[in-house]
Amino acid sequence: MTAEAADATATTGPVHIVGTGLLGTSIALALTARDVPVTLTDTSPSALALSRDLGGGSIATAADPEPALVVVAVPPDVTADLVAAQLRARPHAVVTDVASVKGIILTELTEMAAADPGLDLTRYVGSHPMAGRERSGAGAASADLFLGRPWVVAAHEQSAAAAVLAVRTLAVDLGAAVATMAPAEHDDAVAAVSHLPQLMSSLTAAQLVDTPDSALALAGQGLRDVTRVAASDPRLWSAILTGNAAAVLDLLRGVRTGLDELIAALTAAAEDGPLAPGAVAGLAAVIGAGNEGVAKVPGKHGGTRKRYAEVSVLVPDEPGELGRLFSEVGEIGVNIEDFQMEHSPKQKVGMAIVSVMPTAAARLEAALEERNWRVVAQ
Amino acid sequence: MTAEAADATATTGPVHIVGTGLLGTSIALALTARDVPVTLTDTSPSALALSRDLGGGSIATAADPEPALVVVAVPPDVTADLVAAQLRARPHAVVTDVASVKGIILTELTEMAAADPGLDLTRYVGSHPMAGRERSGAGAASADLFLGRPWVVAAHEQSAAAAVLAVRTLAVDLGAAVATMAPAEHDDAVAAVSHLPQLMSSLTAAQLVDTPDSALALAGQGLRDVTRVAASDPRLWSAILTGNAAAVLDLLRGVRTGLDELIAALTAAAEDGPLAPGAVAGLAAVIGAGNEGVAKVPGKHGGTRKRYAEVSVLVPDEPGELGRLFSEVGEIGVNIEDFQMEHSPKQKVGMAIVSVMPTAAARLEAALEERNWRVVAQ
Repeated sequence: MTAEAADATATTGPVHIVGTGLLGTSIALALTARDVPVTLTDTSPSALALSRDLGGGSIATAADPEPALVVVAVPPDVTADLVAAQLRARPHAVVTDVASVKGIILTELTEMAAADPGLDLTRYVGSHPMAGRERSGAGAASADLFLGRPWVVAAHEQSAAAAVLAVRTLAVDLGAAVATMAPAEHDDAVAAVSHLPQLMSSLTAAQLVDTPDSALALAGQGLRDVTRVAASDPRLWSAILTGNAAAVLDLLRGVRTGLDELIAALTAAAEDGPLAPGAVAGLAAVIGAGNEGVAKVPGKHGGTRKRYAEVSVLVPDEPGELGRLFSEVGEIGVNIEDFQMEHSPKQKVGMAIVSVMPTAAARLEAALEERNWRVVAQ
Repeated sequence: MTAEAADATATTGPVHIVGTGLLGTSIALALTARDVPVTLTDTSPSALALSRDLGGGSIATAADPEPALVVVAVPPDVTADLVAAQLRARPHAVVTDVASVKGIILTELTEMAAADPGLDLTRYVGSHPMAGRERSGAGAASADLFLGRPWVVAAHEQSAAAAVLAVRTLAVDLGAAVATMAPAEHDDAVAAVSHLPQLMSSLTAAQLVDTPDSALALAGQGLRDVTRVAASDPRLWSAILTGNAAAVLDLLRGVRTGLDELIAALTAAAEDGPLAPGAVAGLAAVIGAGNEGVAKVPGKHGGTRKRYAEVSVLVPDEPGELGRLFSEVGEIGVNIEDFQMEHSPKQKVGMAIVSVMPTAAARLEAALEERNWRVVAQ
């Protein structure tokens, strides 16, 4: 942590973290690195000790001063109860949570407040840092987890302005890009960009359980991309999805309409041949709608996917060859802006796709060919 | 082309290419580079001239010698007719096609042969080089398109051994990895690894047509991966899918069953809350089956995804920074085995994930930190 970063930290703390998993410990690490005092608690003593030992702060005790901010970082199905408990136990603290659904937690809290007028929801502001990773737990935590990631701040009608500011400040301090949304708007958004692709990936991968290995050996990047997130944790995802059921249902009903169109078109083709009335039109309609939808998905930095020119180079799959390519591109004096590797099973060579500024592409291609790299014409 | 590669070419030709799109021209370029005589034909005079001008061979004339091998590289819905025409016109040539469905073409040819006993199917062997790209046409062609990619050779019961050998030899000459399958086995395989993910990606992306931009700004790598292939051409894909309708239908009916389970589980949760009977179990069952399916998908080199250790480095999104990282990794003397970049919209930094031999990871992390790179602990 540089002195400048610590100076720029506006959150003063103390901050109390409830739940020392991936998100809770990552927030704790980022705050302690910025010299903000952090106390920790968790129902699992061993998870709690791990978080402390990684440098997340001190284990909370009754003697601690009152926290200014409490972050509840537990699974969505227990979040509302723990937020309410913190609001009651800390009469002056701002309380936020980091669960990936927001509407249901607010509904649960509102019901509790209706039965208990002492429950002060003005100090509660929900939030959602969109910074998951494939691994979970404190061991996977990182102070840098939130850098550049969206962090939704989802205030409700009773949230006090000072409470909203405290949560926004936390997100900014940790390097995230703040997005302000109402809880229902957040839930609709994550249903589309996160929950829908998760379920579609799972549904796709689930069809492969009985696929022979000889068939799977033909898999290319397309299948790998579509099924990658199907590796996610069923228990965590079931809690997320049941907490956003209505919004996800809307989208899945749209999927079912499209799927039924595909099934009708393919049934016609299977029964009456490829030119059966409606077959081609039914398929083309769904694929065409997909063209339209994918064009709206922002790429890197919101749709500037095509900013660079791509130079494709064949790289033998031997240790050091990719490193040699990068070194030589550096010697040639061209900056690599982005990079990807195309692979297929059993492949003896890979295709390295180097993105460079368009003005540098021709020079790089010529220089690489001079050095005996096999440059593939685009 | 080196002398060794030309010497190793077993296909002698002449080879006649029918259809000078991406695949036809790529095969033509690869063969002419190996000094095999190639003649070209296409229904589009301009596509034909482009293929010739790129170096694909000469435009076919009546004076040409009889080809030894004919490659029909046209859309699947016209493939059988053109294969039959070539079998009739060239009484001694082996004829193959490169369409991405195989059963329906064989069925159509068998029906033609039943009506015309002179149609000699012993000289026909279907094949499928799995080497598409996102762009199409001769302009996107490359002699290296097939290097290391699977090339399915799908002989039928009447195929002569010499004909099968000629097609396998073509695939090997062009650097592909030959997979031998019966036509129906091929069609079932590509339904699972190619046609299903295409349709699931299209169905997912189709739901985003009315999603607000503020929601799409939250999109992460998961959505981008699942929807990437949704950008494919509706016309080409409709022809492929109607030609493999039965196999794709089987899979889509499996999807429909899983989708109905999800809808039932989410309906219960929407009506009776997240703990409604069956809600969590229904969701977890589909996601769990997805875990099982995705574990079967081979990664790079057939499932050795975990062979390397990953070192994660934060890279400011400024020209030259990624190039500087690669140069310095080269200076440190560590070979980069694979590489990927994680991005999110509006991100000021990217996470570069450098795969290296496990024995080199700790040394690389220490050396990068010494050079003031921000290495993210795993």
